[in-house]
Amino acid sequence: MQKQKLLINGERLKQELERFANFGRTENNGVTRLSLSKEDIQARDYFCSCCEELGMTVKVDDMGCMYATLAGTEDQPPIVIGSHMDSVKKGGRFDGILGVVTGLEVVRTLIENQIKPNIPITIVNFTNEEGARFEPSMMVSGVLSGKFDKAVMLQKRDPEGITFEEALKESGYEGDPQNRLKEATAFLELHIEQGPILEKESITIGVVECVVGMACYEIEVTGDSNHAGTTPMSMRRDALFTANNLINEIRKRLSALDHELVFTIGRLNVYPCIHTVIPNKVVFTLEARHKDMGIVNTVKDIIQGFPDLGVNEGCEIKTTKLWDRDTVWFTPELCDQLEQSAVSLGYTHRRMVSGAGHDAQFIASYVPTAMLFVPSINGKSHSEDELTTWEDCEKGVNVILDTVLKLLTKY
Amino acid sequence: MQKQKLLINGERLKQELERFANFGRTENNGVTRLSLSKEDIQARDYFCSCCEELGMTVKVDDMGCMYATLAGTEDQPPIVIGSHMDSVKKGGRFDGILGVVTGLEVVRTLIENQIKPNIPITIVNFTNEEGARFEPSMMVSGVLSGKFDKAVMLQKRDPEGITFEEALKESGYEGDPQNRLKEATAFLELHIEQGPILEKESITIGVVECVVGMACYEIEVTGDSNHAGTTPMSMRRDALFTANNLINEIRKRLSALDHELVFTIGRLNVYPCIHTVIPNKVVFTLEARHKDMGIVNTVKDIIQGFPDLGVNEGCEIKTTKLWDRDTVWFTPELCDQLEQSAVSLGYTHRRMVSGAGHDAQFIASYVPTAMLFVPSINGKSHSEDELTTWEDCEKGVNVILDTVLKLLTKY
Repeated sequence: MQKQKLLINGERLKQELERFANFGRTENNGVTRLSLSKEDIQARDYFCSCCEELGMTVKVDDMGCMYATLAGTEDQPPIVIGSHMDSVKKGGRFDGILGVVTGLEVVRTLIENQIKPNIPITIVNFTNEEGARFEPSMMVSGVLSGKFDKAVMLQKRDPEGITFEEALKESGYEGDPQNRLKEATAFLELHIEQGPILEKESITIGVVECVVGMACYEIEVTGDSNHAGTTPMSMRRDALFTANNLINEIRKRLSALDHELVFTIGRLNVYPCIHTVIPNKVVFTLEARHKDMGIVNTVKDIIQGFPDLGVNEGCEIKTTKLWDRDTVWFTPELCDQLEQSAVSLGYTHRRMVSGAGHDAQFIASYVPTAMLFVPSINGKSHSEDELTTWEDCEKGVNVILDTVLKLLTKY
Repeated sequence: MQKQKLLINGERLKQELERFANFGRTENNGVTRLSLSKEDIQARDYFCSCCEELGMTVKVDDMGCMYATLAGTEDQPPIVIGSHMDSVKKGGRFDGILGVVTGLEVVRTLIENQIKPNIPITIVNFTNEEGARFEPSMMVSGVLSGKFDKAVMLQKRDPEGITFEEALKESGYEGDPQNRLKEATAFLELHIEQGPILEKESITIGVVECVVGMACYEIEVTGDSNHAGTTPMSMRRDALFTANNLINEIRKRLSALDHELVFTIGRLNVYPCIHTVIPNKVVFTLEARHKDMGIVNTVKDIIQGFPDLGVNEGCEIKTTKLWDRDTVWFTPELCDQLEQSAVSLGYTHRRMVSGAGHDAQFIASYVPTAMLFVPSINGKSHSEDELTTWEDCEKGVNVILDTVLKLLTKY
C-alpha cells in the first residue's frame, strides 16, 4: 500500500501570493516592486513577520539578502529555498516572489505536520535580482558568488541618482557579511517559466537542467546618406538594405544550426531615420542562446564572419561582442530528485533549459543547486499580463516539498 | 562666320555667390539661413540693394516673395529668373541661392552690354522653399499656385513656436498680394542637381524635363513581444523578422520595375527596441519616385498588396499612404530652348528628371516653366559638404543667359 503523500495547502499558498501582490500592486493587477523601494521594504517587513511567527530566525547579509531559518535537529548546512521579491516596473505577481512564498509554504506544511527537520531549512530572498532599479540583474548573487565586485555594485545608481549603497542603508536591510549564504545542502528555486513551452505542451513541471550560454553582439553597418529622390539605386550605399541582407543571412545560417537555438535582433536603430534620406547607418544587436557552447561558439564564428559574407553592397560592417556567458549546469542529482518527485506526485513533467538568467546560476557555482519551472500563460513575464494558474503554483510547491522531504530523510 | 556668344562674368558670379554665403555661413563653410531668420533678412536686404543699384524695381508680395524687375521696352509678361535664398540648417552655399544670383548675373550682363530687353526681366526669391523652419517645403509657391491655403500656412510654427505670420511681419518683408507672380513669359530656375548623375557621367548641364511623381507609405508590422531567451523560434511572432521579409520583397519587386525608379526606406523604428525582447512592432516608411505615373501606380499596387504577400509569419501588416504626388512636366519648348543653348555653347548636356521637389513644380501649373541642373560633387546637398564648381555654375548661368536672349528676340 502506498503511503499518503504530504501535500501543501494550495489555498494558503494562493492567499500568500495575493498578499505579497499587494506590495506594489498596479492598476492592471501587476506589480511594481523595485529593489529596496518602499514596496519592497513593505514586502520584506511582512516576510519577516511571517517567518518570526513560524519560529524562524531571520538574518540579513551586507547586500540586503534575507535568510529565514527553521532550525534543524542536526548541525548541517541548510536546505535553502527561495528566489527574489523585487520586480521590474509593471511586472507580474509571480516572477521571483513565487520562489520565496514556496519556502514559507514548505515550512508551514512541515510545522503543521509536526515534522522537525534534521537539516535546517532556510528561506532566502536575494536582493535586486531584476536589476530594474540598479543594473545589472542578478547583482547580489553575483557578489555572493564572487562574479561581481561589491564595491562597484554599491556605487550603482538608480535613474534618480541614488546609489545602491544609499538605498540599502536607508532601507534598514543592510546586515552582516557573516550572514551571507556560504554553504548549503541544496538550493532549490521554483520560478515561472517566462516562456511558452510548458503551456504549449500542456506540461506542469519543468525540471531545469541549465541556464543556457549566450553571446550578444552589436553590428554596425555604415553606408552613405543621400537624397532619396535624386540618387539612382545603382549609386547608393544604403545601410538599411545591407543590414537587411545581413539579417537574411543571420536567419538562414542560425536557423540551420539547431532547433533549440534562439536568436533575437531586439534593438535596431536607423540613422538619420528621415523618410527622404537614404540611411547611412544601422546599428543592431544580435543575441543567441543555446545550452551547447559548441553551438554558441559556432554562432560567434558566423557573426565575426559577417564583414566577409559578400552581402555588404558597398557598406562597411563592424561587429562588436557586447558580452557572452557560458552555460551553467545545475546539480544532476538534484534535477533527478525533482523529476522523481514530479513523477511520484503524478504530474506531467519534462526536462528543459532556462533561457533567462536567475540567481540560481550564480549560486550554482558554490552550492548544489536546481530550479523548477511552472507554466507561464502565453509565455508572458515582466508584464502585468504575467499569469500562472494557482493549481500550477501549488503543484510546483508540492514538488519542492517532496524533494525537501527526500533530502531530509537522505541524511 | 559664327557670331560671338554673349557670356556672363564668371568671376563676378563667384564673388556674388561667396558674398551671399556670408549670410549665415557656418564654421564648416556651409550655410544656415532659415527662412525669415536674421541671416535671411540680411541676404534679402543685400539683394534689394544690388537690384536697386541695377535700376530694378523691387516689389514684395503678401507671402514675402521678392520680385526685382528690370523694365522692358514692351508691356509684356516678364521673363522670371530665380529660386530661393533660404537654406536648411547646416546646408550648402549653392542650393537655391544659385538660381537667384543667376538672375543678378544675367541682368548685369545685359546692362553692361547695353541690351535693353523688350520683355521685362524679373528676379524672384520665393520665401521658405526648404520648409526647414516652417513646414511644409515649397510653402509659398504652393500658396501662389493655389495648392496650399494661405491662412493655414500663416499659422505654421517654427520649433520655437513662432508662427510664419509673426516671422513675416517681424521681418519687414510682408508685402501686397497684388505683387504676387501672376503671369510670365517664362520662369527659369537654375539649381544644383542634388544628386550624383551629372558628375558621374561627366556632364555639365542637365535639362530638367519634370519633377517626378512619388508615393510615400508607412508600413506597420505588429507581432508579439516576448523574452528573447525563453521563447522558442517556432513560437515567435517577431515583427522585425517579418519586416525583414517585407523589405526583401520590396527590393525584389520594385527593382524589377524600371532602373530609373528610386525607392527608399528612410525611417524605420523598432519597438520596444531592447536587446533581450523580441520586437512586437516595426514601423517604416517606403517612398518611391518615377516620372512615369504608371510605374508609380504599380508601386502603390504592390505596397497595398503587402498584407497578402504570404511573408508575414503570423504578424499583422498594415499599410497607410502618407501622401503622393503626380509627375510635373515642364514646358517642352523651354526645355528644347535650354538644350539648344547648351548645344550652342558647346557644353555637355543631357535630359534628366528632378527627383527632388522645387518651387518650379508649383509655378509650372500656371506659368511656362523649365529648370536647369548643374553637377553636385558626390551628389551632396542639404549638407555643409554641398559643392558645385565655379566653372559649372558659370556654364549654367551662361545657358540661362542664352535662353533669355533667345526669348527676348523671339517676341
